Amino acid sequence: MLAVALQEARDGLAEGGIPIGAALFGPDGELLGRGRNRRVQDGDPSAHGETSAFRAAGRLRGYGRTTMVTTLSPCWFCSGLVRQFGIGHVVIGEARTFHGGHEWLATHGVRVTLLDDPECAALMREFIAARPELWYEDIGR
Amino acid sequence: MLAVALQEARDGLAEGGIPIGAALFGPDGELLGRGRNRRVQDGDPSAHGETSAFRAAGRLRGYGRTTMVTTLSPCWFCSGLVRQFGIGHVVIGEARTFHGGHEWLATHGVRVTLLDDPECAALMREFIAARPELWYEDIGR
Repeated sequence: MLAVALQEARDGLAEGGIPIGAALFGPDGELLGRGRNRRVQDGDPSAHGETSAFRAAGRLRGYGRTTMVTTLSPCWFCSGLVRQFGIGHVVIGEARTFHGGHEWLATHGVRVTLLDDPECAALMREFIAARPELWYEDIGR
Repeated sequence: MLAVALQEARDGLAEGGIPIGAALFGPDGELLGRGRNRRVQDGDPSAHGETSAFRAAGRLRGYGRTTMVTTLSPCWFCSGLVRQFGIGHVVIGEARTFHGGHEWLATHGVRVTLLDDPECAALMREFIAARPELWYEDIGR
């Protein structure tokens, strides 16, 4: 499942965007929606990886048995999304380059799987080094 | 400022949507973006009032001196938005019909003004009574 999110991140980088990707899967592993950060591409500061994947999945009832897979630890905005809609499981590529709200989610009953994937970490580390102003814009700093 | 958000909420109701509106204002009270819940109108579950207003404001640097005005207490998703981007002040029409994350925001340094406006509360109370399934879909219950 991480491969889908990672491909989204790579596609975003190729477009000149911020390389964070995500995908929402259903109870049987079926892909419900996938997306990537589109701040640069669409001029949309609300289009984070997770919000894009959630949006792409359309209107659903009951997220308890869904899994959100993201290349990077979810920021507070995306952590809030997971908590509000009761997404049952979050799979995170890495939390080395950015430490978001995943521990907060775990304390609120969300199952959290942190993969510590070296490809995800390298992608963000290189991006942050190359485009720090864009990265800090994206997380509101 | 609440009048702008309330007009968005009323316009949403007239379109058959969920009547929650919001607007983002700059340091001198200038309107940066306004929007409303568009779950029904756009089939977009990520389009809450606050996220729509934030999106409409486009890419900005530094939200510390901005004010998000919303007709209803922000859900966790929208509270996460406020916290991540460091929006300095949140003005809330009412928190009677839904109690979101505004106290959490206050503990994290966000200035929170709760107006307890009867028009905002009546709008939501009537909507929830008329369309409970739509309302509970919107907050992931």
